Amino acid sequence: MTDKKTALVISAHSADFVWRAGGAIAKHAKLGYDVTVVCLSFGERGESAKLWKQDGMTMEKVKTERRKEAENAASALGVYDIQFFDMGDYPLEFTREYKDQMVDVIRKVQPKFMFSHSKWDPYNTDHMNTTQFALETRMMAQAWGHNPGEKVLGAPQLYLFEPHQTEQMNWKPNIFLDISDVWDKKWAAIQCMQGQEHLWHFYENVAENRGNHFRRNSGGQAGGKAATHAEGFEAIFPRTVDELD
Amino acid sequence: MTDKKTALVISAHSADFVWRAGGAIAKHAKLGYDVTVVCLSFGERGESAKLWKQDGMTMEKVKTERRKEAENAASALGVYDIQFFDMGDYPLEFTREYKDQMVDVIRKVQPKFMFSHSKWDPYNTDHMNTTQFALETRMMAQAWGHNPGEKVLGAPQLYLFEPHQTEQMNWKPNIFLDISDVWDKKWAAIQCMQGQEHLWHFYENVAENRGNHFRRNSGGQAGGKAATHAEGFEAIFPRTVDELD
Amino acid sequence: MTDKKTALVISAHSADFVWRAGGAIAKHAKLGYDVTVVCLSFGERGESAKLWKQDGMTMEKVKTERRKEAENAASALGVYDIQFFDMGDYPLEFTREYKDQMVDVIRKVQPKFMFSHSKWDPYNTDHMNTTQFALETRMMAQAWGHNPGEKVLGAPQLYLFEPHQTEQMNWKPNIFLDISDVWDKKWAAIQCMQGQEHLWHFYENVAENRGNHFRRNSGGQAGGKAATHAEGFEAIFPRTVDELD
Amino acid sequence: MTDKKTALVISAHSADFVWRAGGAIAKHAKLGYDVTVVCLSFGERGESAKLWKQDGMTMEKVKTERRKEAENAASALGVYDIQFFDMGDYPLEFTREYKDQMVDVIRKVQPKFMFSHSKWDPYNTDHMNTTQFALETRMMAQAWGHNPGEKVLGAPQLYLFEPHQTEQMNWKPNIFLDISDVWDKKWAAIQCMQGQEHLWHFYENVAENRGNHFRRNSGGQAGGKAATHAEGFEAIFPRTVDELD
Amino acid sequence: MTDKKTALVISAHSADFVWRAGGAIAKHAKLGYDVTVVCLSFGERGESAKLWKQDGMTMEKVKTERRKEAENAASALGVYDIQFFDMGDYPLEFTREYKDQMVDVIRKVQPKFMFSHSKWDPYNTDHMNTTQFALETRMMAQAWGHNPGEKVLGAPQLYLFEPHQTEQMNWKPNIFLDISDVWDKKWAAIQCMQGQEHLWHFYENVAENRGNHFRRNSGGQAGGKAATHAEGFEAIFPRTVDELD
Amino acid sequence: MTDKKTALVISAHSADFVWRAGGAIAKHAKLGYDVTVVCLSFGERGESAKLWKQDGMTMEKVKTERRKEAENAASALGVYDIQFFDMGDYPLEFTREYKDQMVDVIRKVQPKFMFSHSKWDPYNTDHMNTTQFALETRMMAQAWGHNPGEKVLGAPQLYLFEPHQTEQMNWKPNIFLDISDVWDKKWAAIQCMQGQEHLWHFYENVAENRGNHFRRNSGGQAGGKAATHAEGFEAIFPRTVDELD
Repeated sequence: MTDKKTALVISAHSADFVWRAGGAIAKHAKLGYDVTVVCLSFGERGESAKLWKQDGMTMEKVKTERRKEAENAASALGVYDIQFFDMGDYPLEFTREYKDQMVDVIRKVQPKFMFSHSKWDPYNTDHMNTTQFALETRMMAQAWGHNPGEKVLGAPQLYLFEPHQTEQMNWKPNIFLDISDVWDKKWAAIQCMQGQEHLWHFYENVAENRGNHFRRNSGGQAGGKAATHAEGFEAIFPRTVDELD
Repeated sequence: MTDKKTALVISAHSADFVWRAGGAIAKHAKLGYDVTVVCLSFGERGESAKLWKQDGMTMEKVKTERRKEAENAASALGVYDIQFFDMGDYPLEFTREYKDQMVDVIRKVQPKFMFSHSKWDPYNTDHMNTTQFALETRMMAQAWGHNPGEKVLGAPQLYLFEPHQTEQMNWKPNIFLDISDVWDKKWAAIQCMQGQEHLWHFYENVAENRGNHFRRNSGGQAGGKAATHAEGFEAIFPRTVDELD
Repeated sequence: MTDKKTALVISAHSADFVWRAGGAIAKHAKLGYDVTVVCLSFGERGESAKLWKQDGMTMEKVKTERRKEAENAASALGVYDIQFFDMGDYPLEFTREYKDQMVDVIRKVQPKFMFSHSKWDPYNTDHMNTTQFALETRMMAQAWGHNPGEKVLGAPQLYLFEPHQTEQMNWKPNIFLDISDVWDKKWAAIQCMQGQEHLWHFYENVAENRGNHFRRNSGGQAGGKAATHAEGFEAIFPRTVDELD
Repeated sequence: MTDKKTALVISAHSADFVWRAGGAIAKHAKLGYDVTVVCLSFGERGESAKLWKQDGMTMEKVKTERRKEAENAASALGVYDIQFFDMGDYPLEFTREYKDQMVDVIRKVQPKFMFSHSKWDPYNTDHMNTTQFALETRMMAQAWGHNPGEKVLGAPQLYLFEPHQTEQMNWKPNIFLDISDVWDKKWAAIQCMQGQEHLWHFYENVAENRGNHFRRNSGGQAGGKAATHAEGFEAIFPRTVDELD
Repeated sequence: MTDKKTALVISAHSADFVWRAGGAIAKHAKLGYDVTVVCLSFGERGESAKLWKQDGMTMEKVKTERRKEAENAASALGVYDIQFFDMGDYPLEFTREYKDQMVDVIRKVQPKFMFSHSKWDPYNTDHMNTTQFALETRMMAQAWGHNPGEKVLGAPQLYLFEPHQTEQMNWKPNIFLDISDVWDKKWAAIQCMQGQEHLWHFYENVAENRGNHFRRNSGGQAGGKAATHAEGFEAIFPRTVDELD
Repeated sequence: MTDKKTALVISAHSADFVWRAGGAIAKHAKLGYDVTVVCLSFGERGESAKLWKQDGMTMEKVKTERRKEAENAASALGVYDIQFFDMGDYPLEFTREYKDQMVDVIRKVQPKFMFSHSKWDPYNTDHMNTTQFALETRMMAQAWGHNPGEKVLGAPQLYLFEPHQTEQMNWKPNIFLDISDVWDKKWAAIQCMQGQEHLWHFYENVAENRGNHFRRNSGGQAGGKAATHAEGFEAIFPRTVDELD
């Protein structure tokens, strides 16, 4: 555990953290946070179509390639630590061992806030199951009787990052983060994802349009802040404050 | 318009702002905000049972009494300005004139944030209609063509304050405000509501239990903040931030 | 006001009470209730296609015919009192005068429970607006300052009766009433609706299938009650009891 | 009424039909439909900030300018008929006269399908109220007793077009229309909206990203159709078919 | 894999496909589709009460009887292929082996569309778990890294067929299929279900009433199509089209 | 199985039945019911913070202490039988063996109604998983092929008792039970929970405020019943009745 503020991203497949929380990672890294990313899988079976279309491809080669891309992206974003659980994807299977392993990371990081996927995703059950996994391991990390003596987790917010088709996933952002000043880093990270080039421009558009939503919600033409790019998140838990904003 | 930070409460009946946002009012008054309260009615027909049970009661007497109570409560909370639209209650009827009058207040106050009722209330249609009125007049105040030349409204948050039976009103708080240090003021304001003494203890319990929710959501036994009293609100619009919390 | 137990049905058009609550009316009439029915309109514009296809039809003839059918049906069901507000349909327009008139009826009847339409109906806005009207006038009838001196309304349940396409109206029954022993009366009342013969068999099927749901929810093959016909309702307000069931 | 297939767009303000249904209009015009657009207002008060910032601006000048832009856009899209109800905006007030006027248009057009706004919009109550207006007038147009003798409306689908912040409006598309081959027309129409240039690129991004969603939902990398631009709609009513697709 | 159009039904118990999708199966068989049905279990424990009430009944006898009934029904409907996974019911347990087996079938069939149960069913958790199983295996079948070299699945629609108590299952049909011309086949198939005769008339009523809904939604008295029987489905995924309907 | 009326409480951790259903237990015990409580775990890991803060604490000591507290509380409430499944908590893992064991209890008790947790709980996945477990085992107990020859379960209501933060759990009570005359017993039981003294006053407030809701929903100032304490429940299944109330 570092002395600095920390955040933790739980990513079902090895590219999700880039598209969905890359801006938040780069932003908070710049603000001095140590951001840890856990990729439960490489997306080796389900999100590597381009690789599998090549001759002589093997599972190991796919994993190696996907790991490399994710590490490069993490580096571009200023990630403090990236871990790969290699749980297998499509589908992810959540054993007790992986839950315990996740709790170890959560307790070590002691995140001020966490990130995961949407609660519902009919296209990709790995995503919604990862969110259940995040909630369950957050609960376990709060249990005083789990590895007694370890520092117990407080009550970090869980931010659900943006899925591919927001409306189909019943995902509703209640917070927008200005990522204008780190957009170049997110764009660089996106370009590390060589296997999914068909998504680059899509997420560029998302960032720009969330910038529009940011401007509108911060005041629009009557005093809004001139963000060019933003990311949206759905906070699951209520906030606790000393002053409204 | 003052130079200070401002907030605006739109209260269907003259006691709603006390039970539901009294702590937030006192808290922000203490923080230096000028808080304006608009009571659309005195609750003279529907929320004055105790008075009507007295012999010789008249509508004017009820209004006078209710106004006095509300003014006393406002004073106890440190309200900057309290206005009574006297629109008639049970039911409130929202004419264009009242809408324009409300827009005038909104533009004059230029609130950093606003408060109103829940979106649904099968017990009390005045409450839910007031929320529609708040949304509609907020929109009108943002229109550059409404009284051109006036300062146009930005995009203040609308906080829905706590209704009497939260679950029946589909109200879900996403923010808790610590009101421990101003609880004495809210309690004093509550006691100004002589006609509704049967609700005093109820809202004392609410404040204490929201204090429990505050403690739990700020970390619980692993570092939560020791609030004794709190208020919950449902923010309708997404926030825009430069750092997550 | 009679000394007997009472119920009140608020029906947007003059046939709604037959299809949707005819069994409940006959059942409770048989149990000794005085059941009052208020038809806000005759459905003269929107639910009288068959009549309008006849040569020389006029609005007055349609209203007369529809009133006759409704009165016959009411008679078949054992209705205590049926009133026609003649507010005009498609669309109903809810003025303050009609609200006050409705409150007068509610207070005179002092119903143990009330019936109205679903909360949402994209096919027929008259239906959902009638439910808002029922909620608003129920609230007004509870106001001690409305015609002070009159007996104030308690807190009768509001049952939403079954719409034509339940799922499209987001209507979900939480109570089924056995109407087996009065099905003959409901069937007789249905047959009074000469202008809408195309709906007779539809509502016969509904009654039979709700009978199936009744049997299933009362125990099915392991002890369920052998109802042949039933009606479903969505109670809006929570019940208050001394023993669970 | 023409002999051709027809569609009808009900647009709260004079630019809504461009951003939200411009592609569908151009597409169906190309397919031989006569598409009628009704603008309830010019958006003269609420959506003309740029004009109001000019010196010496008046309401009439704003309306004239907005009408011109809308007519140009309609022309670019191949609209058959565009009408302006001039009801006043921010807020729209829906009188019985406007309802009857709308029914006249609906009956004259006899649309195969209609378009309107989302069911909920806390930013802009004009939008959600317009949807209620569309539902209510659709119902009126189906009433055999409304102007007896006129051709009665069938049951056209009502498509809710895309709002500015989809998730905040609880809007969920259940159909995507390929507009790739008419994108040039929509883009030309968008550029007619001189007063809202800040929205051009936003809606370009929307069209591109909906193109991505179209590709994904038509098969993705395993056989999806290569649409470059699309529009999404939420159909309110169930479809009736002879074969599933 | 045949050259013809194909569809796939995933049925938790061996009778579900008959009540809930029998019309769609017969209709599309008639239209030339090869329709495959997979029964995850025989419903041998939970849906065979009548058999278990007989003396000397054994699990094998129940399975044999239920299989026979299902095969007869499949034959009556014109099913191309029916498979029994024999996973055990009440509860179904979804192991990785069964998931892989299901993926094999999906890929072999390459369905144009699929059918399964509702998303929620508090009466029968087998049903809702089957829907999750359908979504998960659909996802797996789309993974290029699952048995590389096999033909990867596109994006077939998943239709949720009608549950026993639609409102309790939060099931909302958004498409109605006319099954009038194959009703005789569905009725014959229903009568193959000797063990559940108490449900025959119930589903006959359902088919007739969905016919009513079909007529209403296709135009009602102003041009609707005269279907006598129909089935309703809830499509989970958005459609992609070149022309609206 | 006794000859008396029976009820069954399924409690994730050993204190849940006290806070959430203690009043209902005491009330029905007083009315002559045999109430059985099953605690799936002792809450030994996740709800025993106070114990774990003591030196030399072990898992066995925690379980022993928690069991003692639960037994004392059960005794104070008049519980007929309390069982501990000792499944381990944070997280509960629901194996087939535990399901079968639960079915044995359900069939032995043959409850008139059952209790369990809310459907959603992002703070505590044990709670929502327990509700799924209750639904699944209720279904299994209804299967005639499960241990053929045993008495099959009918269709008991499942009441979801009150969670800690009702709104966050999407829990909505639709029935309030007057527990005024047994409040002393619930209060005594609460005080048995030595390890969670920080929750005593919270649940005292809950009981008082639910008493207020009881009074309001039974008629308020116009005839409501003077309950001082109450408990709220969300009934999942529709009721079946012979007379409305």
